Amino acid sequence: MTTAENSLFQHSNVAGTAFEELSVREQAERIGSFCPDAQRLAMRVLDPDDAADLLQSLDHALRAKLLALLDFSARAEVTALLAYAEDVAGGLMNPRFIRVRPHMTAQEAIMYVRKQVAANPATSSYVYVLNSQQKLMGVISMKELLMVEGKQEIQQIMRSKLVTLPESCAQDEVANIFAKNHLIAIPVLDGNGCMKGVVTADDVVNVVRSEATEDMQKMGGSEALDMPYLTAKLPTMIRKRGGWLIMLFIGELLTASAMAHFQDEIAKAVILALFVPLIISSGGNAGSQASTLVIRAMALGEVKLRDWFRVMKRELVTGLSLGIILGLLGFIRVVAWEQMFHIYGPHSVLIGLTVAISLVGVVLWGSVTGSVLPFLLRRLGFDPASASTPFVATLVDVTGLVIYFSVASAVLMGKLL
Amino acid sequence: MTTAENSLFQHSNVAGTAFEELSVREQAERIGSFCPDAQRLAMRVLDPDDAADLLQSLDHALRAKLLALLDFSARAEVTALLAYAEDVAGGLMNPRFIRVRPHMTAQEAIMYVRKQVAANPATSSYVYVLNSQQKLMGVISMKELLMVEGKQEIQQIMRSKLVTLPESCAQDEVANIFAKNHLIAIPVLDGNGCMKGVVTADDVVNVVRSEATEDMQKMGGSEALDMPYLTAKLPTMIRKRGGWLIMLFIGELLTASAMAHFQDEIAKAVILALFVPLIISSGGNAGSQASTLVIRAMALGEVKLRDWFRVMKRELVTGLSLGIILGLLGFIRVVAWEQMFHIYGPHSVLIGLTVAISLVGVVLWGSVTGSVLPFLLRRLGFDPASASTPFVATLVDVTGLVIYFSVASAVLMGKLL
Repeated sequence: MTTAENSLFQHSNVAGTAFEELSVREQAERIGSFCPDAQRLAMRVLDPDDAADLLQSLDHALRAKLLALLDFSARAEVTALLAYAEDVAGGLMNPRFIRVRPHMTAQEAIMYVRKQVAANPATSSYVYVLNSQQKLMGVISMKELLMVEGKQEIQQIMRSKLVTLPESCAQDEVANIFAKNHLIAIPVLDGNGCMKGVVTADDVVNVVRSEATEDMQKMGGSEALDMPYLTAKLPTMIRKRGGWLIMLFIGELLTASAMAHFQDEIAKAVILALFVPLIISSGGNAGSQASTLVIRAMALGEVKLRDWFRVMKRELVTGLSLGIILGLLGFIRVVAWEQMFHIYGPHSVLIGLTVAISLVGVVLWGSVTGSVLPFLLRRLGFDPASASTPFVATLVDVTGLVIYFSVASAVLMGKLL
Repeated sequence: MTTAENSLFQHSNVAGTAFEELSVREQAERIGSFCPDAQRLAMRVLDPDDAADLLQSLDHALRAKLLALLDFSARAEVTALLAYAEDVAGGLMNPRFIRVRPHMTAQEAIMYVRKQVAANPATSSYVYVLNSQQKLMGVISMKELLMVEGKQEIQQIMRSKLVTLPESCAQDEVANIFAKNHLIAIPVLDGNGCMKGVVTADDVVNVVRSEATEDMQKMGGSEALDMPYLTAKLPTMIRKRGGWLIMLFIGELLTASAMAHFQDEIAKAVILALFVPLIISSGGNAGSQASTLVIRAMALGEVKLRDWFRVMKRELVTGLSLGIILGLLGFIRVVAWEQMFHIYGPHSVLIGLTVAISLVGVVLWGSVTGSVLPFLLRRLGFDPASASTPFVATLVDVTGLVIYFSVASAVLMGKLL
C-alpha cells in the first residue's frame, strides 16, 4: 500500500482499529458504508480466506460489487473458496501456501521459497512438497530447511508421513483432528490427493470456541445467538429465545392435561400434590446431567452413534444408583417430617414409599431419556445439542407425572385413594 | 535415541502408539508400570511442558523418582514449570524457544539459530530477540529471517509491537487473547519483561476444548468429569453426578414445604394444582436460557463483572416480553379448553388470568435470577458455570410456587378460594 492509499484507508477506519483485525460481523457492518477506494483497499488487506468469510456474510449485490474490486488472481482464489461451505475444512483453509518440488535441492528450494514469501508474506511457516500433478508428497518446515545441507534433495529430507484433512471435513472433526495431533498447520487435500490449502491452529481456536458457544446456547434451551450477548438487539434475542420457550411451553401444557387426568386422586389426597415439583424436577435434573455429558462426548468425538447401547447400559446403572440414593432421602424426609410436625397423617410411611419408588423411577427414566435422546436426534439428522436441558426436562416432566401417580395408585389404593 | 534404546522403548509401549502422542491421563496410567529404562526414555521423549503436565498428575513419590531420571538441564526446566499452576500461561508454555540478540546481523542470527534448532528441534517457528537482561525486544519469523539481507541488523528488521502474555495469565484469558489476535505463538513474560517461554495455538485448541467441556458439564448440573465419558468408572460418575443431584434435591425439598404452605388453597381448588408443573417449569426454562447466555459471555470475556446492571436491564425487558407471550398463550389455553371440554368450571376466565399473570411473573423472575446469579457467584469467588440450569430451575421452582399461589389468592379470593 502506498502512503497515500494508507492514509485514505486509515481515514475510513472507525476508532483506528485495522480493518483486518475486526471480526467478520464488524467488517460486514462497516464495509458497506466505505467509499469505493476504501472498499478496494479493505478487500486487498484481507487474506483470501478472510475475504471469503466476509463476502459470505454479505448480501448478493454487495458481494458481487466487492468481488469485482479484487485483482484477477485474488478473485479466482476467493471465488474458489466461496464454493465451500463456511464450516468445512475447505472453507477454513488459506489457499495460499508455499510449495516446492520433490527433486529440488535444498538450495534451490530456499530460492524458490524466498520468491513465494516475497509475493505472499501471510503464509504458514511450512513448505509443502507437491509433484507435478499438485499431489502432496511431503512437508518440511522453514526451520528444517534452514538446517539442511544445500545439496540434499527435498524428497530425502521431507517428512512424508502426514496428517491431512479432506476438503469436505466438517469443522468439528477438523477441531478433533487438531486436538488429537497437536499440530500448528494441517494441509487440505481434494479427492485426488491434490493440495488445496492449509488450515492453521489459530483459526481452529476460533472454530472450537464458536462451536462450543453454539452448543452451550442450544443446550441451555435457546437458538444459538451467533453474536456477542451484549450486542444482540433485544428483538433478535427475544425471537431466538422465544421460539424454543414457546415450543417447550406447548410441550409442558401436556403436564396440565396429565395432572387433569389424575384430578380425582389429587382431590382425594391433596398431599400427593405437594411432592409433584420435587419428583418431576429430580427426573429433569438427572436427565440434564445425562444429556449434557452425552452431547459433549459426541461433539468431542469420544462417543459415536454406534455406542448408543453402551451409553444406555451405563445410564441404566448410574440412573438406578442415583435414583435409589434420592429415593432413600425422600423416604427419610417424609417419615422424619411426620415424626416432627405430624403433617402427613396416618399413612405417612406409605406416602414416603410412594415418593421413594417414584424417585427411583423418574431418575432412572430421566437418565436413560437424557442419554438416548442425543443419539436419536443425530440419527434423524438433527443437532444432538438440541436435546437441551429444558427439552429433556419437559419430556421427563410429563412422563414423571404418569410414573408418580401410577405408583401412588398402586401403593395407596384402598388407603388414601 | 539409539536403536537399542528405541527397541526397548517401543517394547514398553502399549498398542504401538508413541508415548508422547498419548494423552496425559494415558501416560500417567502407564508410566508407573514401565521398567526403569523405559521410564527414563519416556521422560526423555517428552518436551519439558509435556513432562511437567505428566508429573503434575502423578503422586509425589513417582514424581520425584521420574524427575530424577532427567538430565540436569531438562530437570531444571521441568522443575521451573512445576512451580506454575497448570492453568496459567506459565503452566501452558514451552520454556524452550529460539533467541537472538538485537545487534546481531541477519547472517550471524541465522548461524546462531541453526545451532539452537539442532539442539532443540521441537521449538516454534519464531525467533525471539532478547537483550542481555533477557528482556524481550522483538520477534522475527524464520521465514522473515530467510528473506532479509545478510548484513542487516536484527533490531532493524524485527517486529517490536508485540502481543505478550504475563506468566500468571489465566488459561481462559490466554484463550481469549489468542482468539482475538489470530496468532500461532505468543511469548510469555515475567513481571520484569523477561521472556520465560512460548504458548502455541495448538496447545490453546486443547485448552479451549477442555474449558468448554468443563463449563458445559457444570452447566448441565454435575461436577466436571475430567475424563472421557466412556472411560469414566461408574462409581466416579455416580459420585460426580450424585453430589449435585443430592444438593439440588435438598433445595427442591423446599417446594414440598412451599406446597404444604398452600395446602388449604389446593384442597379448596384442586384445579390450581394442575398448572403447577407448567408454571414453575416455564420459569426454569427462561432462567436456563438467561444463565447459559451470561455464563458463556463471561467465559468468552464479552461480559465483565461491571456489566451486571446492563445485563439485568436487558433481562428485565427480555423476560417481560417472553413472559407476556407465554402468559397470553396460557390464558388462551385455559379459555379454549373450557370452551371445548368444560373442565375448568365457571371461574375459568379468572383461572386463565391467574395462570397468565403468574407466567409473566415467573418468566421475568427466572430471566433476572438466571442472569444475575452468575455475577453473584463470580463476585463471591465461585465459578459462574455453577449457576447450572438445574440450580437456576430449583431456585425458580420454589419462588415460582410462591408467585403462583400469591397471584391465585389475589385473583380468586372470594370466588374459588
